[in-house]
This record gives sequence, structure tokens and C-alpha cells, in this order.
Amino acid sequence: MSIKIIIAGPRGRMGSKAIKMINEEESFELVACIDRKNNGKQSKEITMLPNLNVPIFDDANECFKTVDADVFIDLTIPDAGFNHTRIALDNQIRTVVGTSGFSTEQVNELSNLASLQNTGCIIAPNFAVGAILMMQFAKLAASYFPDVEIIEKHHDKKLDAPSGSAVKTAELIMDSRKYKKQGHPEEKETMSGARGSDIDGMKIHSVRLPGLVAHQEVIFGGPGQSLTIKHDSYNRDSFMDGIKLAVKEVMNMNELVYGLENIVTIN
Amino acid sequence: MSIKIIIAGPRGRMGSKAIKMINEEESFELVACIDRKNNGKQSKEITMLPNLNVPIFDDANECFKTVDADVFIDLTIPDAGFNHTRIALDNQIRTVVGTSGFSTEQVNELSNLASLQNTGCIIAPNFAVGAILMMQFAKLAASYFPDVEIIEKHHDKKLDAPSGSAVKTAELIMDSRKYKKQGHPEEKETMSGARGSDIDGMKIHSVRLPGLVAHQEVIFGGPGQSLTIKHDSYNRDSFMDGIKLAVKEVMNMNELVYGLENIVTIN
Amino acid sequence: MSIKIIIAGPRGRMGSKAIKMINEEESFELVACIDRKNNGKQSKEITMLPNLNVPIFDDANECFKTVDADVFIDLTIPDAGFNHTRIALDNQIRTVVGTSGFSTEQVNELSNLASLQNTGCIIAPNFAVGAILMMQFAKLAASYFPDVEIIEKHHDKKLDAPSGSAVKTAELIMDSRKYKKQGHPEEKETMSGARGSDIDGMKIHSVRLPGLVAHQEVIFGGPGQSLTIKHDSYNRDSFMDGIKLAVKEVMNMNELVYGLENIVTIN
Amino acid sequence: MSIKIIIAGPRGRMGSKAIKMINEEESFELVACIDRKNNGKQSKEITMLPNLNVPIFDDANECFKTVDADVFIDLTIPDAGFNHTRIALDNQIRTVVGTSGFSTEQVNELSNLASLQNTGCIIAPNFAVGAILMMQFAKLAASYFPDVEIIEKHHDKKLDAPSGSAVKTAELIMDSRKYKKQGHPEEKETMSGARGSDIDGMKIHSVRLPGLVAHQEVIFGGPGQSLTIKHDSYNRDSFMDGIKLAVKEVMNMNELVYGLENIVTIN
Repeated sequence: MSIKIIIAGPRGRMGSKAIKMINEEESFELVACIDRKNNGKQSKEITMLPNLNVPIFDDANECFKTVDADVFIDLTIPDAGFNHTRIALDNQIRTVVGTSGFSTEQVNELSNLASLQNTGCIIAPNFAVGAILMMQFAKLAASYFPDVEIIEKHHDKKLDAPSGSAVKTAELIMDSRKYKKQGHPEEKETMSGARGSDIDGMKIHSVRLPGLVAHQEVIFGGPGQSLTIKHDSYNRDSFMDGIKLAVKEVMNMNELVYGLENIVTIN
Repeated sequence: MSIKIIIAGPRGRMGSKAIKMINEEESFELVACIDRKNNGKQSKEITMLPNLNVPIFDDANECFKTVDADVFIDLTIPDAGFNHTRIALDNQIRTVVGTSGFSTEQVNELSNLASLQNTGCIIAPNFAVGAILMMQFAKLAASYFPDVEIIEKHHDKKLDAPSGSAVKTAELIMDSRKYKKQGHPEEKETMSGARGSDIDGMKIHSVRLPGLVAHQEVIFGGPGQSLTIKHDSYNRDSFMDGIKLAVKEVMNMNELVYGLENIVTIN
Repeated sequence: MSIKIIIAGPRGRMGSKAIKMINEEESFELVACIDRKNNGKQSKEITMLPNLNVPIFDDANECFKTVDADVFIDLTIPDAGFNHTRIALDNQIRTVVGTSGFSTEQVNELSNLASLQNTGCIIAPNFAVGAILMMQFAKLAASYFPDVEIIEKHHDKKLDAPSGSAVKTAELIMDSRKYKKQGHPEEKETMSGARGSDIDGMKIHSVRLPGLVAHQEVIFGGPGQSLTIKHDSYNRDSFMDGIKLAVKEVMNMNELVYGLENIVTIN
Repeated sequence: MSIKIIIAGPRGRMGSKAIKMINEEESFELVACIDRKNNGKQSKEITMLPNLNVPIFDDANECFKTVDADVFIDLTIPDAGFNHTRIALDNQIRTVVGTSGFSTEQVNELSNLASLQNTGCIIAPNFAVGAILMMQFAKLAASYFPDVEIIEKHHDKKLDAPSGSAVKTAELIMDSRKYKKQGHPEEKETMSGARGSDIDGMKIHSVRLPGLVAHQEVIFGGPGQSLTIKHDSYNRDSFMDGIKLAVKEVMNMNELVYGLENIVTIN
């Protein structure tokens, strides 16, 4: 028996990839779309949507009440996503949220609601399973190799450095090693910034070049050896495996979980 | 209180590095050497040994009976190493063996002896912690990414391809994924061997070039992303962290363990 | 004064990127499109084309006779591309061809025509400047480092292995070194194919994984060191710099050149 | 006919490797050693030297007057090296100097002497051919790819950052591109140093970890692609190919050349 799925945001960059993923996964079945346009039409009537008899709703509550579904996937924007998720949980429909930007208060409110309704919900700002594994492995390796540096590389349109993922990786490493001021105690920068940014004595370096997408390597060094964990993200397809995994996992959950790292378990 | 250590093979390539490691580790203390030469002398009388009042024995049994020690480290050759270990366990001295080449029968005999004597023993053919972590991470990642290829690179004096480590990594990956014939179902080699060697549908590629030492990368691929785990070994120093770890762990053991992967735990 | 450009195939995957590139390059100006659809309209009337007063023709000869242009870029399919190029040269319009698949006879005919008409023409199957540089550098390095292996990595939809670029790189390396059987003279494959495919004694390895795009590294090894030249192609944008370069170079040419390597000069 | 070689500093770290290299190279023949110890003895009488009938001198002038030689290799220390080289050139013996640390005045004096004596001389602070090629390729690539960042990685005993090689690479790149402030014009470091050190608008990042030896990669980025040139030095063997090359090249020279980049020509 397949998992029946409602998706919100079917025409967006993430949504259109998610619909493709649902169609290709045997155990998934698309049963409705929530879209602010095209209310009352069928999916097959819309050029950008699949050629299926799947109804389109602009009202989330009506959709959840009308259509029998197992999981709701939201890939819209923060405001709409928060409302959709609240309504889905009210209707005891398990929810997977790929929309990023919820406030802590919003996450807390949804978490309470999920527990009250005994309904699973997964909210994840990053659905790239490889990135999650990289961070988990880095945390594990740090208990054996206290010396580590992080190099993250992104396209040159990125405004901030270092990346959020690099900082999060460093924080996870801090969980499994004590503070260590790395490098030679008397090392000197003859050019300011050469040794990168410092967090807990370890270093993060940010490369920005046209053409690059999103890449990170975590390099551990010990006498005579180094261990490197590297993740390369080439495009948004990288999120689809995480969403697929979340849909399957949420079927067995009855509360809210924040962050894919809680379901990409490595034990 | 420091851990008192006897070492066999103190003048060898591994032994001399191990002695340096023992001297640099605060919690370790060298208390005797077993060496087929220089019986009855002190370490400080021998050019290649440290300038210490540490006695040298050519008879292992006499050494173990005379000197109060916590751990015995054997870094000799298979025949001598097997005898030394048997005698150490007979004397209830915990043992760490970095000598490779024991037969299965020898390992079984030592395992029975260790249990009988209630004495810890660690035998490991590879003491590079980073290599062990690479293999463990590869096994974990394979449950999320069934598509994987291994590239191992060694100096061009190496006779066999693929390397033992690469095959062992592939076997660990097989533990956590089902058989999968990778690549395009209709892919064709226009030049024989291009796609590497096949094990369980995954591919291993062996590079041999002068200058290289010992390197391996395990590359997992999924839609839009790749995850790479890489280990570089630059010289034999890479084994010392593993031996150090084994000495500490064996203090809390009362049986034999084969393979460093059993003490480099990642859970 | 800007270079006035006519483009054929403006709605295709390459063509649409080329139009974007032309608009962003100050010294280029789009003056007409050749398109089998939309004859007689203006670019701004077509959704997929830029909002400009640029005329569209379905007849190449009429276009070249009517519009004053410096360079013609063809990004269509082999048959159409061959005809367009012939007509362009007949009209003494310099031509840059990114369409691949011309036969040797077709290239020869166009070459004779270009010389006769005293008109520059560049035909290139690969417009990624970085790939061309990688090959040139590999050729140069081989005269100092006779030991070399090539690893090429592509998505798992690719049918043939090794890639055409890898073979071409090997051929260029052969130009600057003598035959050398690499690896240990007595090396043995315990699993067939481990050492890759052999060309002139050097080895090519082909990795195929989902998520990868098009990547190649050429690794040279000598005592104590290795030198690696690596090219990563993430998407078709990589061709635009080559087309831009070709447009500028063809302005100073009066004959046909095949292959971007003839204009990406490194001396 | 082989090239007859005198070496100074035969027992040092570089010297002992050079003697091994000379013995293994068919066209080279060791004819004398200059050594402050062991004057008047034969090489075969000294444990650390090869088992040959090669005379040892402590006086350079006597050595050059007594022994018929083609090339003199100095691998000592600056003061001795400068004197040896002056005496060798006085005796019209071609000289290859691997000793680093000569002052500009010393180099100039030797250059004048070499021209006066019509005798070839090569002085090089870095004999790793791969590192020289990396720099030359980087300079060439920069004329096609103005966006570039350098990552250099060394062991954590290194005091200064960035490395001299990285700075020299950046200076060569500056020769073939105009100033370019890279990255997003409004990029922000949320942690100081993240974007590395700045030279002419490009960035250099310095990684320091135990286990690493000496590594550098130069990464060029353009739309849709990146080109990487990487050099890994694993040990001092990497200098021997450069010394071998210099010995052969100096045979055809009659003046002084400073820097291996002047003989590792890529045109």
C-alpha cells in the first residue's frame, strides 16, 4: 500500500522536483496539491504540473478535510507554511516541512500541537542527507582527532562567511572535544586572515568563486595521517532524498522533530 | 599513576617510533625492552635506544617475571611475536600486538589463553585510527547512499591491486546495503578495465604512482550530491595513535580482541 | 564599437544561455536571430527570447544579406548548422560553431570555403576553457613527469567509459613522453579491472555515480611528490566563456580553426 | 659518456639523497666528495657514504684542481656554499646550488663571476619540479580565469602563514591578470578571517594540521566550472628530480640562472 501525499507549493523550484520524486517512488502516491492558483482544477490541466487526475485546492483546510492523505509536504514560504502545518496537524495529517525560516516560537507552537494531536511532524532547514552525515561523522571523528579545520566553498553570490553549515559543524565538533588552540603556539600571520576564522581554537576557511555550488570539507589531522569528510552539493536534487526519507519516517512518529539529523541516525 | 610498558622490537622501524611515543605520553612509562641483542644491558648503553635506565632482556619469560609491568607491546615478527604474546598472557600481562601475519589458528589459541588468564589482549593488523574511522563511516553511509565507488592510491612498488583495505571497506559496505549493480545498465567499456574491478556491483579503482604513500577515498553519490570519506597515510607515525589508544583500552579488558575497529567505537 | 552578432538556435539550451551571455558582455550586441519558428517577428514578441527589437529570420541567407553583422554563432543541430555555416561563409560572415557532430568531410569543405572567402571560422566540440587548459597543462607536465594516471568521473547515465576527454588527454600526453609501462613490473590484479584501462602504459579510471556531473583529474607522480590537474564542470554555463573567447578571436582570423585548443594558447 | 659530478655535503639529509640519485642515474658518475670531515679517505671507508673508490676532500680548491669533473653540486650551508661556488666557478666547473639562503649581493657576485668565466650555474631555493609547474600553470590559467583562490596546507610546526610558495604563486598570477576584488561586493565576514588573507583582491587560506607535509592547491572559478592545480610534497625526495634536471641543463649553459622556473620551461 502506498503512502498518500498532499503537497503545497507544487509549482516552485523545490515543489516541482518533489512532485517528480513522488512520481518516481513506487511507494508514494500524489493525491492533492495546495496552490494559491488553479483552485478546483485538476493537475493535468496545468502545464507545469503532472498529467494526473489530482485535484488542486487553494484552501488547506478544505483540502485536508476532503482528501484522504497520509502525509502533507509543505514547500512554500514561511507564513503560508506555518499556517498549512498548523491546519494539517489540526486534521491529524503527518507533516514534512522543507520551508525554512520558522521562528523558534513557531516551531515550539507546532511542537506542542503535534504532541497534543499525537501526529508526527518533521521540520528541516536542510534536507541533504549527505550534509547531515558529514556533520555527524565530523562529530564522531573529533573524539579521536582533536585537530581539525573546515574549508567551505560556495559561489561568489553568497554574502556571508563562514556558512551556517560550517559553523554548525564546528559546534558539533565542540561537543566531542575539549577546547584546543590549534597550530603552532607561536604561529604568525604575515598577511591578516591567512589562518581563517577561529571557533574554539579550530579554523574555518571560506572560499568564494564563480561556478562553485555548495561544498564543504572537514579535515582531521594526526601524526602521519589525515582523515577528510567532504560533501558536494551540485543542485537542489540533493534535497529530494531527505524529503523521501522524512516522508517514510514521519509515518512512524507521533511528535515533532526539528532537524534531519534526528532521523538520519548512525547508531 | 602511569601505565608501565615493556616493548619487544625496540630497534625496529615501528619499535623506535613506539618508544618515542611512550616517552612523549605523560601517562606511559617504559620499564623494559625485549631484544634478541644486548641482553643484560641498559637502554642508555645502546645508541639507537633512549638514554634511560631501562633493562634489556633477550628472554621474554625472564623479563615478564622480573619486571613489574602493566602492558606488553610486541612489534617484532610473526614467530617471535606469537611466542612473546603467549608468554605474556601466561604471566597475565596485558598485550598489544602490532605484528601482522598471525594465522587464524594462532589468533584462536591466543584468544583462548587470554580468556583463561582473564587478561586483555589487542591484536591489530592496522593501527591507523583514521583508516578504521573511514571504514566505519563508509559502512554507515552506505545505508543512505547505495551507490558508491572506492579509489585507492599507493606508491608504484605495491604488487597487488586492489589493496586489502579497499576490499575490506567494500565488505563492510556490503553489510549495510543490498547488492546493487551500479552504473548505467547498458554502460560499455570501450577500453577494457576502465570501470575498475567489481565487488557486489560496486567498483574499486587502484592508482599506482611513484611518490604516493597510502591513500583511499570512498565516494557516495545520490541525486544532486556526493559524500566523500578520504584517508591519507603519509608515514608510519600514523600507527602510533592507534597503539596509544590500544594500550589505554587494554587496561580495561580481560579477553582478546582482533582488529582496532572493535575499540575505535563510534556509537 | 561593439561586435554585432547573429545567433541561430536562440531558444535551445545552449542558445538561451548564449543570448544571456551576449546581453551581459558590454562589447557584444545581438542583431538578429535565425529560428525555424517565428519568422518576421521581433525578439521581444517571443516569451523565451529577450525583450529587444531584434528581428527573427527562418531563412539564413536572407538574414545574412539583410542584417549587418560581424559574427554568426550557430548552436543548432549538425545538418542545419552545416548549412548555416556554409551560407555565412558565402556571405563572408565570421562564424563560431558550437554544434557538435560535423563529419570530417564537412569540416574540410568548410575549411576550404573559409580560406577561399578569407573569413574566420571556429568549430569546437568542447567550449569549456578549463577543460582545454587541463589538457594542455597535462601535455606540458608529461615531459617532466612520465608517470601519470587519469581519473574521470561522470553521472551514471553516461554509457561509454572512458570518456572522450580522458582519451584525448591521454593522446596529448603521448605526444610529450615515450611509451612507459607504469606500475610495478610484476603487479597483479587480484580482481580484474582494478588497475583501470591501459593506453600507452598509462591508466584511465572511470567513476560513474548519480549526482556527479563531469569531472576529470590528471595525476602525475614523481619521487616524493604529485602534481594534479583537475577540471570540474557543473553545468552548461561552462561553455559560455569559450564561446565569448571564440567570438573575440574569430574577429582577427581569416581561415577555419577546429578545436578551442588552437585559440586557448598558453605560450 | 657520463656527466662527472663532485658533491659537497654528502652526509647531509639532501646530500645523502643526492648521492643515491647520482648512483641510480645511468648518465651520472660521482667522482669526488667535498666534506669537512674524512679528508684523504675514500667514500667506501665511511659508513654513511657509498661503497665506491671516490676520494674525499676538505679543501674545495684542491678538489677542483685535482679531479676532472663536469658539474659541482653544493648541498651544504649558505657560508660554505657561497665559498664553494665561487671556487668552482673560478675553476670553470659548472655548479648546481641547492643550498638556500644566499643574499642578493652574493647571487649578484656569483652571477658576474659565472659570466666572466663563461660557466653555467643554477641556484634554486626550491627544486620540486611539480611546485614550479603548478606556479607556471597558475600564471597561464589566470589570463583565462581572473577569479582564483589559493589553499596551502602544512604541518602545524610551520610558524608563518601564508607560505612563501603561496605568496609567490599569487605574485605570478598578478603578472597575468588585472587587479580584481573577488567575491560578492557586499560580502561580510560574520567571523573575522573567514575569507582568508587578501593579495591583489584574491584570497590565500592557510591550513595547519599535524600529519600534513606540504600541499597547495590553486582553484580557478568561472561560470559553470572550476580548474584546480594541486601540488603535494610528501618528503625531500621531491627535490631530486629538480637537481637531476639542473645537472643536465647546466651542461649547456654559460651563465648563472636563479630559480628552477627558468629551466622548467613550458613553451
